[in-house]
Amino acid sequence: VSEERRAPFDPIAGGHAPRREEAAVEFNRIVAFSDGVFAIAITLLVLGLGISGGSADLTHALLGQEADLLAYVISFAVVGRVWIAHHRFFAALERFDSTLMGLNLVYLACVVLIPFTSAVLGDYEQHPAAVILYAINLILVSLAFQAQIVYAYRRDLVWPQAREFERRLAGPANLVVAIVFAISIPIAFIDTLAAKLLWIVVFVVGTRVEDRIASLGGSRSD
Amino acid sequence: VSEERRAPFDPIAGGHAPRREEAAVEFNRIVAFSDGVFAIAITLLVLGLGISGGSADLTHALLGQEADLLAYVISFAVVGRVWIAHHRFFAALERFDSTLMGLNLVYLACVVLIPFTSAVLGDYEQHPAAVILYAINLILVSLAFQAQIVYAYRRDLVWPQAREFERRLAGPANLVVAIVFAISIPIAFIDTLAAKLLWIVVFVVGTRVEDRIASLGGSRSD
Amino acid sequence: VSEERRAPFDPIAGGHAPRREEAAVEFNRIVAFSDGVFAIAITLLVLGLGISGGSADLTHALLGQEADLLAYVISFAVVGRVWIAHHRFFAALERFDSTLMGLNLVYLACVVLIPFTSAVLGDYEQHPAAVILYAINLILVSLAFQAQIVYAYRRDLVWPQAREFERRLAGPANLVVAIVFAISIPIAFIDTLAAKLLWIVVFVVGTRVEDRIASLGGSRSD
Amino acid sequence: VSEERRAPFDPIAGGHAPRREEAAVEFNRIVAFSDGVFAIAITLLVLGLGISGGSADLTHALLGQEADLLAYVISFAVVGRVWIAHHRFFAALERFDSTLMGLNLVYLACVVLIPFTSAVLGDYEQHPAAVILYAINLILVSLAFQAQIVYAYRRDLVWPQAREFERRLAGPANLVVAIVFAISIPIAFIDTLAAKLLWIVVFVVGTRVEDRIASLGGSRSD
Repeated sequence: VSEERRAPFDPIAGGHAPRREEAAVEFNRIVAFSDGVFAIAITLLVLGLGISGGSADLTHALLGQEADLLAYVISFAVVGRVWIAHHRFFAALERFDSTLMGLNLVYLACVVLIPFTSAVLGDYEQHPAAVILYAINLILVSLAFQAQIVYAYRRDLVWPQAREFERRLAGPANLVVAIVFAISIPIAFIDTLAAKLLWIVVFVVGTRVEDRIASLGGSRSD
Repeated sequence: VSEERRAPFDPIAGGHAPRREEAAVEFNRIVAFSDGVFAIAITLLVLGLGISGGSADLTHALLGQEADLLAYVISFAVVGRVWIAHHRFFAALERFDSTLMGLNLVYLACVVLIPFTSAVLGDYEQHPAAVILYAINLILVSLAFQAQIVYAYRRDLVWPQAREFERRLAGPANLVVAIVFAISIPIAFIDTLAAKLLWIVVFVVGTRVEDRIASLGGSRSD
Repeated sequence: VSEERRAPFDPIAGGHAPRREEAAVEFNRIVAFSDGVFAIAITLLVLGLGISGGSADLTHALLGQEADLLAYVISFAVVGRVWIAHHRFFAALERFDSTLMGLNLVYLACVVLIPFTSAVLGDYEQHPAAVILYAINLILVSLAFQAQIVYAYRRDLVWPQAREFERRLAGPANLVVAIVFAISIPIAFIDTLAAKLLWIVVFVVGTRVEDRIASLGGSRSD
Repeated sequence: VSEERRAPFDPIAGGHAPRREEAAVEFNRIVAFSDGVFAIAITLLVLGLGISGGSADLTHALLGQEADLLAYVISFAVVGRVWIAHHRFFAALERFDSTLMGLNLVYLACVVLIPFTSAVLGDYEQHPAAVILYAINLILVSLAFQAQIVYAYRRDLVWPQAREFERRLAGPANLVVAIVFAISIPIAFIDTLAAKLLWIVVFVVGTRVEDRIASLGGSRSD
């Protein structure tokens, strides 16, 4: 409490990066804001579903939604996974500065696009352009996340225990996502469903690998 | 504070499930994320209401909204109830791991569908397909919740005081919801309104029973 | 901390109402959920504004939005005010139980309707039905809030210092809102703008009176 | 804890402004509510993007979205920046009162309009009226923020260490935003793209200057 009274005013920006304990309220606000954006973005995915009010044959209209539903399932899994990765990254942060806040906003701007690109993916299931748009969106998300990881590592913003973990494992694991989505772009020209299946396969495998990696990081910190 | 300094980096996943106190910030973030998704989903229910801007006879258009309003009331009660059950389940958790986080995301994916299926329920009041779609949605919500309860019980993630309560009472109470919605599916083919009335009756009775059960759990923990 | 370990599992419902300190996490979760719903509902008001994408004369289309903008301003002020009142009520709570949680959900269900009734108010500025719909919505909000105040008072859930304040001042102040909106219903048949102006006048006067009342409560608690 | 027990009921309004520690829960609730509104408003920007479901040539339709995308990028940067400034202002607050809460609501009402004015900006790229509407919106945001800064300074609600910083630097930096948007209005009549480029240039320069200013404030408080 005494420490809190000593430096109650601490604008986030500045030459020095405030330590997490020193500016706990501010740090929590950034985390809460990011989580709020994630929670809203993931919930807005439902707006991609929707049938026009005047359908004569409801059963037929609902069964025709399978592309929308597939896009919903893919995007929910993707946003959920991206959120968990972001969650882990912020758990590994010891300090932050205004540049990291800016990078985080750029990253969130890419995440918030997902409900839009996901809706396009559901509405234009046969179009390679829809798959490519979605892939570009997720490549941007990965790169913006990578920028945060690299910056935090270079500026020593990460807990010492987590430094190696971030550099050797979390960073490469994230780049794999970008590479897989890049590979899916040429595949989309041949078959759009094949591109989506590739995402799902990589997602299921990647999730297991990522959890294994995170568990290594966890045992190393003990 | 010293404990926090000992293990500041704790990726949620891994072989061991972090205890709630050890990873309080992370646990709260998951709870806050889930609550955020619930709050957004329950508020998006209002988008199911809506009259086209050019209605000549507003009074008539508003009075014709009674199916939308019924769907809104049912869904608000359902999501509210589901949220309270989720709230109680997380209050009973002592620890968590990455699998539980994944199951929770699957569960939230089912919850987020409710604004869509509720809007369909309001727009197509006479169609059995709308009632069936809604019933399937809530059966999925119940099963995804059951998966969390069973997993948490098997992996000993629940406070010892709450273990019996979860297994004997909360789990079965949740399955009753799935069964009632399953029963309402054949009824919907005969009369859609009867199916909805069944939900309401079970909801009112179920709420009282559930509160009684929770109160038993409460007094047992004293 | 020791107290937390003694009774870590405390389902909200039950014969006894948990004290705020005993179940601080649970209480905060309910408050955060309510605040989240308020924040989303107030932000969704912007969806009431909107011009069709193909307007040839944008300036004309924007200037024709003055009814939508008036509805937006009224609703933002109303929801903001309702939130502050709710905020004060929860600050005065010492304990809570499952019935209060249920009443709070009913109340939130009425609040969430405001973006819908506000959009109707903006789109059908000349129709008494739009004014009446909005007035009924706010009467329901007031009554649902009154139910919470009365229940909390009867069950002794309010801090002793705040008890008199709640009963003598906050309750009556809230009922005045219901009465004003009830009075505006017959006025709407004569002139819809007059009804809206009445709301604004009462709002400005009421806000000053309410702050005076709250300040009395504040000095009394010293 | 003892202090909390001494004055558990503290209605926010009243003659005296509660100190931040005395009413930490209430203060956090206001901050969380504001952050929630920001998070939702920034996420709703995605609704400005959107192509009609029946486009025959998706690639063409997507490439025609560059005005919508520019509006999205500008608005995400603007709302993000406005949020950081609000964030810093609240970090500098020692106390608050009901007038500041009211001013904050007026300010949020202006912020919430941005998803609407941003969507108009994207849909009517060639119309000066769209640029002017957006500029007016941001001038209102700046003025409503200035009102909070001036009020907090006059009523001594700011931490002593931050007082000079707020008056000499944060206030003027905010007014520059209002002036730049005012200057862009006549430019919009000549060229709408030039007006938008002016915003972007000032945004990039302004961000660096603002961070420099904040860093001065930070080192001064050491």
